Amino acid sequence: MVDTASGTTDSTSGTSTEYRIEHDTMGEVRVPASALYGAQTQRAVENFPVSGSVLEPAQIAALARIKKAAAVANARLGVLDQSISDAIAGAADRVVTGEFDGDFPIDVYQTGSGTSSNMNMNEVLASLASTALGSKVHPNDHVNASQSSNDVFPTSVHVAVTGALIHDLIPSLEHLAEALEEKAELWKTAVKSGRTHLMDATPVTLGQEFGGYASQIRLGIERVQSALPRVAEVPLGGTAVGTGINTPAGFPQLVISLLAEETGLPITEARDHFEAQGARDSLVEASGALRVLAVSLTKICNDLRWMGSGPNTGIGELHIPDLQPGSSIMPGKVNPVIPEAVLMVCSRVIGNDASIAWSGASGAFELNVAIPVMGTALLESIRLLSNSAVLLADKTVAGLEANLERARALAESSPSIVTPLNRVIGYEAAAKIAKHSVAKGITVREAVIDLGFVERGEVTLEQLDTALDVLSMTAPPAAK
Amino acid sequence: MVDTASGTTDSTSGTSTEYRIEHDTMGEVRVPASALYGAQTQRAVENFPVSGSVLEPAQIAALARIKKAAAVANARLGVLDQSISDAIAGAADRVVTGEFDGDFPIDVYQTGSGTSSNMNMNEVLASLASTALGSKVHPNDHVNASQSSNDVFPTSVHVAVTGALIHDLIPSLEHLAEALEEKAELWKTAVKSGRTHLMDATPVTLGQEFGGYASQIRLGIERVQSALPRVAEVPLGGTAVGTGINTPAGFPQLVISLLAEETGLPITEARDHFEAQGARDSLVEASGALRVLAVSLTKICNDLRWMGSGPNTGIGELHIPDLQPGSSIMPGKVNPVIPEAVLMVCSRVIGNDASIAWSGASGAFELNVAIPVMGTALLESIRLLSNSAVLLADKTVAGLEANLERARALAESSPSIVTPLNRVIGYEAAAKIAKHSVAKGITVREAVIDLGFVERGEVTLEQLDTALDVLSMTAPPAAK
Amino acid sequence: MVDTASGTTDSTSGTSTEYRIEHDTMGEVRVPASALYGAQTQRAVENFPVSGSVLEPAQIAALARIKKAAAVANARLGVLDQSISDAIAGAADRVVTGEFDGDFPIDVYQTGSGTSSNMNMNEVLASLASTALGSKVHPNDHVNASQSSNDVFPTSVHVAVTGALIHDLIPSLEHLAEALEEKAELWKTAVKSGRTHLMDATPVTLGQEFGGYASQIRLGIERVQSALPRVAEVPLGGTAVGTGINTPAGFPQLVISLLAEETGLPITEARDHFEAQGARDSLVEASGALRVLAVSLTKICNDLRWMGSGPNTGIGELHIPDLQPGSSIMPGKVNPVIPEAVLMVCSRVIGNDASIAWSGASGAFELNVAIPVMGTALLESIRLLSNSAVLLADKTVAGLEANLERARALAESSPSIVTPLNRVIGYEAAAKIAKHSVAKGITVREAVIDLGFVERGEVTLEQLDTALDVLSMTAPPAAK
Amino acid sequence: MVDTASGTTDSTSGTSTEYRIEHDTMGEVRVPASALYGAQTQRAVENFPVSGSVLEPAQIAALARIKKAAAVANARLGVLDQSISDAIAGAADRVVTGEFDGDFPIDVYQTGSGTSSNMNMNEVLASLASTALGSKVHPNDHVNASQSSNDVFPTSVHVAVTGALIHDLIPSLEHLAEALEEKAELWKTAVKSGRTHLMDATPVTLGQEFGGYASQIRLGIERVQSALPRVAEVPLGGTAVGTGINTPAGFPQLVISLLAEETGLPITEARDHFEAQGARDSLVEASGALRVLAVSLTKICNDLRWMGSGPNTGIGELHIPDLQPGSSIMPGKVNPVIPEAVLMVCSRVIGNDASIAWSGASGAFELNVAIPVMGTALLESIRLLSNSAVLLADKTVAGLEANLERARALAESSPSIVTPLNRVIGYEAAAKIAKHSVAKGITVREAVIDLGFVERGEVTLEQLDTALDVLSMTAPPAAK
Repeated sequence: MVDTASGTTDSTSGTSTEYRIEHDTMGEVRVPASALYGAQTQRAVENFPVSGSVLEPAQIAALARIKKAAAVANARLGVLDQSISDAIAGAADRVVTGEFDGDFPIDVYQTGSGTSSNMNMNEVLASLASTALGSKVHPNDHVNASQSSNDVFPTSVHVAVTGALIHDLIPSLEHLAEALEEKAELWKTAVKSGRTHLMDATPVTLGQEFGGYASQIRLGIERVQSALPRVAEVPLGGTAVGTGINTPAGFPQLVISLLAEETGLPITEARDHFEAQGARDSLVEASGALRVLAVSLTKICNDLRWMGSGPNTGIGELHIPDLQPGSSIMPGKVNPVIPEAVLMVCSRVIGNDASIAWSGASGAFELNVAIPVMGTALLESIRLLSNSAVLLADKTVAGLEANLERARALAESSPSIVTPLNRVIGYEAAAKIAKHSVAKGITVREAVIDLGFVERGEVTLEQLDTALDVLSMTAPPAAK
Repeated sequence: MVDTASGTTDSTSGTSTEYRIEHDTMGEVRVPASALYGAQTQRAVENFPVSGSVLEPAQIAALARIKKAAAVANARLGVLDQSISDAIAGAADRVVTGEFDGDFPIDVYQTGSGTSSNMNMNEVLASLASTALGSKVHPNDHVNASQSSNDVFPTSVHVAVTGALIHDLIPSLEHLAEALEEKAELWKTAVKSGRTHLMDATPVTLGQEFGGYASQIRLGIERVQSALPRVAEVPLGGTAVGTGINTPAGFPQLVISLLAEETGLPITEARDHFEAQGARDSLVEASGALRVLAVSLTKICNDLRWMGSGPNTGIGELHIPDLQPGSSIMPGKVNPVIPEAVLMVCSRVIGNDASIAWSGASGAFELNVAIPVMGTALLESIRLLSNSAVLLADKTVAGLEANLERARALAESSPSIVTPLNRVIGYEAAAKIAKHSVAKGITVREAVIDLGFVERGEVTLEQLDTALDVLSMTAPPAAK
Repeated sequence: MVDTASGTTDSTSGTSTEYRIEHDTMGEVRVPASALYGAQTQRAVENFPVSGSVLEPAQIAALARIKKAAAVANARLGVLDQSISDAIAGAADRVVTGEFDGDFPIDVYQTGSGTSSNMNMNEVLASLASTALGSKVHPNDHVNASQSSNDVFPTSVHVAVTGALIHDLIPSLEHLAEALEEKAELWKTAVKSGRTHLMDATPVTLGQEFGGYASQIRLGIERVQSALPRVAEVPLGGTAVGTGINTPAGFPQLVISLLAEETGLPITEARDHFEAQGARDSLVEASGALRVLAVSLTKICNDLRWMGSGPNTGIGELHIPDLQPGSSIMPGKVNPVIPEAVLMVCSRVIGNDASIAWSGASGAFELNVAIPVMGTALLESIRLLSNSAVLLADKTVAGLEANLERARALAESSPSIVTPLNRVIGYEAAAKIAKHSVAKGITVREAVIDLGFVERGEVTLEQLDTALDVLSMTAPPAAK
Repeated sequence: MVDTASGTTDSTSGTSTEYRIEHDTMGEVRVPASALYGAQTQRAVENFPVSGSVLEPAQIAALARIKKAAAVANARLGVLDQSISDAIAGAADRVVTGEFDGDFPIDVYQTGSGTSSNMNMNEVLASLASTALGSKVHPNDHVNASQSSNDVFPTSVHVAVTGALIHDLIPSLEHLAEALEEKAELWKTAVKSGRTHLMDATPVTLGQEFGGYASQIRLGIERVQSALPRVAEVPLGGTAVGTGINTPAGFPQLVISLLAEETGLPITEARDHFEAQGARDSLVEASGALRVLAVSLTKICNDLRWMGSGPNTGIGELHIPDLQPGSSIMPGKVNPVIPEAVLMVCSRVIGNDASIAWSGASGAFELNVAIPVMGTALLESIRLLSNSAVLLADKTVAGLEANLERARALAESSPSIVTPLNRVIGYEAAAKIAKHSVAKGITVREAVIDLGFVERGEVTLEQLDTALDVLSMTAPPAAK
């Protein structure tokens, strides 16, 4: 906190930054005069010139909400005067708005407990609360009362992640699923060739394919939801090592119920506070659920790109909306740019997931000390996937146009449409027909006749026409 | 199937292997005379001399059970004669026992749909059924009736994985959790120093730590269980491309209910057959749950290793059971060999998981074509984790002995035990005490007195002794 | 070593296995009577029932060669009697042949230093040497003289890996590169459409594409070679902790030169024995080089699969050799099975690489204790890639057939062939032409005329025909 | 380029942003009036609201240098007028300074070829050059002449990466290696206990350990250097698909030599332009080299943290410099914050590496379309590692203090110091001594005497004292 305000020229850097002298338990530090934060934040700024990136705003906001809940709980349990509690809560409300985001300058790559960021929040709130109250509010003794970085900081990650999953990711995925389902409905009888091993297979409809994509996304939502109860468990109340040292009786339960109310999120107390501080397993689990989404979106985007390939030398079953010129040298070229962007997002999510698992395994005894990178990577993944899902829905899926004639013509050209004849003439005879059609460049129907099956009475022309109807192959009895 | 039995000297290899001539739709193939399999298996053996490793036995058994369920369903729905169905089902029962595992020689690295292994099963069952029935049973037209590799093979992975999770992994994890919980109970008041950032922190009990480990495992079980419903969804009934072409009405529902009955597993029909054949996302999800277990076990094993480090130059709070001499050069050395083995298992599970995600993203249109490697890696991970959990429980956790005096002495030496004094004299004064104790090499109690806090009446000796009781620090009011 | 031979019925298991009693520093152990190994191997067999997989034979052979080199060096430096040294060396020669592979039953997932496997080798060689010599050779005092598991076991990994890279992988990759180069030469003027973003681009030749694939493989060989000098550095001579305790003067240099001679490999002494035992970084590096190969092969196999897609609904520029029936339900279907198998190998190599990096980071102080899994994964990756490269060359690349007319027709249909007109009429006008040709379904040449460019004299017909010659677009002046 | 300047109120957003109308081949676009860029950049800004992150400044600068080199080469080869070339080159020089970084607003997650960013550069340079020249310079026809995004954009990644490796990473690593070597020299006789499997082993010196760390970093530099020749190969000159279409004869060679001169980097022409555009393998390779550094730094930082653990309950051999208060609740606690930050950097590098490999495998035919994420991730990894290496050197390694007495006392307490007696009394007798010393809590020397070895004359007291000198165990004859 502030000791003396003695701004003068910073002779070291040669610029004339105004500063003041602050102190902490290690001594004095010069802090920019206008900064709301104090000594410990300043030390951290100087100690960690690593990436230039700071924590995600969602985590800063979550941290402020936790401080507010703690201040309220501390007052109710007699640890803080009501006036101090109110001042801290009021300050926290202002920080939540993002108004002071510039006062949180500490690098992601800091101490692995996030202590620097917790102290940053303590100092900023102490500063704002002191001003509001007109008397000194202490960052540790008041703002951090009944808390430790070790329970507060991971809690802020879980709260921010829970909020982002519920409010950002799931609705974005639902939006994408709906866009896909709309196409599934639109194209439910748009017959096209199936492809397995990339080779011509029996027919499907475009609607069936898009229904499958929508199901992948719906299942992805289910996966996120099934991880949520564990992600929403927070270590708050465990303080330094999980024991809850320096908390009043009833604090964890009270502060967590206040936090749940404040955030509107289904936050619950960790079932085991030692697990909840020693490990960050539920973040690894949540990242795993995002990874499945990345895998799903990779498959979907690749299928879209291939169906849209061409216009003349590819598959050309779909037209992907033209959004921008595709080449600086090849005039008139248009590329599937949104699916490509989404594929790169998937790649980043895969990478973030590797970081999260790696860091998740690195804890020792009462603390994991790679929390800032885990939280930042996880929140980034959620943000990227949320934005991508909406973009893919609105700028690609919604505007897709099918080349229905080409799709049907390709379906009819697939030698695998011989498959229904297995039941009539057996697999081996059917194989002869398929091969004959490819070798001669004739249709399967022609091949059947050419090989004498009709003449020999092994199949009638009527049976043949029924068997070779491509649309009916997409909905055999079993699937109806 | 068999055409002519004409075993003679294999002039190519110079050895005198007996063989017979088999044919398939591509022509003739020489097959070892004693082999139950036929042409397509033989082609695959010759086509894929890659790893020397075959599919996991659990998958072979699952495949046989699927064939049995399909044979029964085909008979009920009029696709197969009852006698042929019975012969196939009888043959499948024999294969399930493992009696013919040697007749499944195809490499894991084969066609990505597992068609070769599906045909291997079709051929072996056709061969056994033909003999039993006394008339020819066809591998495609009979054994594979109403099926395709594209639905059957992935179904066999999901069935085997579901069975292994339920029957092997979960009970093994429960066994480990119980062993940890037993120690948690035993050591619930065994006070020791907490460690955060590896640095001396406030006290915890060994029991609290082991309770935390047990919770990690219990949550791990929960994670596996929450993935199970999706893993247990199978594509069976979708045949070639998900449409169910060449199946009779009602087949998917019937065959899946028969399969669930046959296996005793909660197998259900895929909600969307196009998702279920185009993607293998639920295997990626399941592997993600195993990965969290690997992360949890890594943390647990590292903690155990460090607590057992020494005997004289390490932490020495635990004695890990002596299982074997630890060094070929340093006499009398004993090492934490089981935790090391488990850590290597975790590393393998992490690697398998990377393969599974990579392969999971590689599908196109109506089929993922990296199923054999996904299934094998996933089943291996389950097997390794199951065996490791039991081993860790029985050969390490059960035999752990605590050095209770050393643990308490270390707890009392931690400068962080000053923490309860925050409430009495404030964080900054408490920090002075902690630093003084370390600098002078004296206890915290001595430092409080030395710095005059008692003399000045800021704290009484009674308050001091209450505050500094290490065991009571592990169970403050809030945690009770 | 053997104390008493007292074979009787094993009453525990109910079978009548003959056994004998052996002892080590921890006491007595029952060992199968016929086993060459002794007490410590038996303990390890019992301690590690994890995976059922043992070390790769190449590592067992390398370990035996190290023991031979050490025995010879020990004799020369006066540590061992010549007769004992000779007996050990003779025994090692027999083990190298693989004759006793069954006597190395210890699981991969064992103590992380590989001490169990080192002692297994010490015991087997002691046993063989004792018999040959007619007097007792001690596994530790003689076979392991001047050695520790901590230098010997990682050395065996580096030796086996170096050998496998030089003798297996590089020649296999060269074979593949040659097969690709042969096609590059064959198809050097086989014009086809280029594809970027999967969309129609300006023409290339099939030969250029295959030349690119060959270059990927050639660069892959270069990457392996550039890692080799560090992989070939071995810790041998450092014994327990890198200091070389219990070695005679000159031992590391002598034993390593003998080992280099014995193996014919460019093995060198670690430049820093503490780095060489505390870390396994060069294995991580080597795996990274293999990973680039997996990435390269993934790209190549995917391109091949897409060019071979069809026969009627895909790109159909290549015909991939028919090796086996492709579907159990779709008659006559043939799939790109070798590229699929290779893609699964790539996925496994990616997974192994993740394990190796994970384990590589897990060392502490004087030893990495995840060596068995690192060595096994790395040797597996080399083996899989070596076999795959040959298979891909022989069963796919060599037999590829190009559909030259289709390839040229597609090239001529690409709207991007308008690109050379940029120089004549500018990028924006050229874009109009491309779009016009696609919209109208006419050729670029027709579109130029249709839009009046010839009429207006902006381009002559001669210029047009020169500009639109697809083959000449593949070799513009700059590329000649 | 600019058509009409018609700035008015933006009625959509409700704000009154001035804008102008630009057009490209797809039509008109509204662009902020003050922006140097044009229509295609604006489209991309609107198309890709994904992450909010833009390309690394180093890549923007590299892109500008390429444009300059191309302008100069185009003038020399008669493709551009000298005045236009000069104007472009002059504009590029200004962009290189970073003055216009705000004019490069496009998201990393854009089209996978980076076409949007290439066009952004073309538009900005066209705009600046037009103003300077007083006549219109066209972004495609002039600035992009003889180029395509497909060769230019990946070239910009390779140039930026090559520069960052040479100018940032390698010097930073050398700085760290020197800091470690200084400690290695300082502590070359500072004896301490070795630790293998975390258990007490024979002695080493702190200097040997730090020498090992320095070697890891030196080998890491070697790894980077061995990847450099391939990273420095660039596709420039290949234009659209590698054929060099629309380039004048001699262009690739000329432009690359100009680029090498302009950048001062060892840039060379790709040996195979089809490999160089179809694949991005060398970026995967480079990332692999960074990954080994992450693995090395993980090991080093963990060792430092453990040696610094305590002050009273850990190993306590080192004192890590105090940089900031370590806990918001535990007063006086100081943590190893820099090693923790570096460990999180390593985790991020591991994650970036996973993204790079994933994206590296995703190319098809003539182009990899995940270049922006690969380039950004790779440049981030280099930046993080460079900053971390300097930080670790300056804020941790330089200030380390050893607790020499404690280190020696621990060394002398290790039962493994019995090891030299193997040569005198054999491994089995030595094991008895070690166990006796641990069981009785006496020194090894006392145990030797207590067990009667001296009395029985098996070892003399002089032999004993020579054998048990811990410092001499760190430098046996072999290691001298």
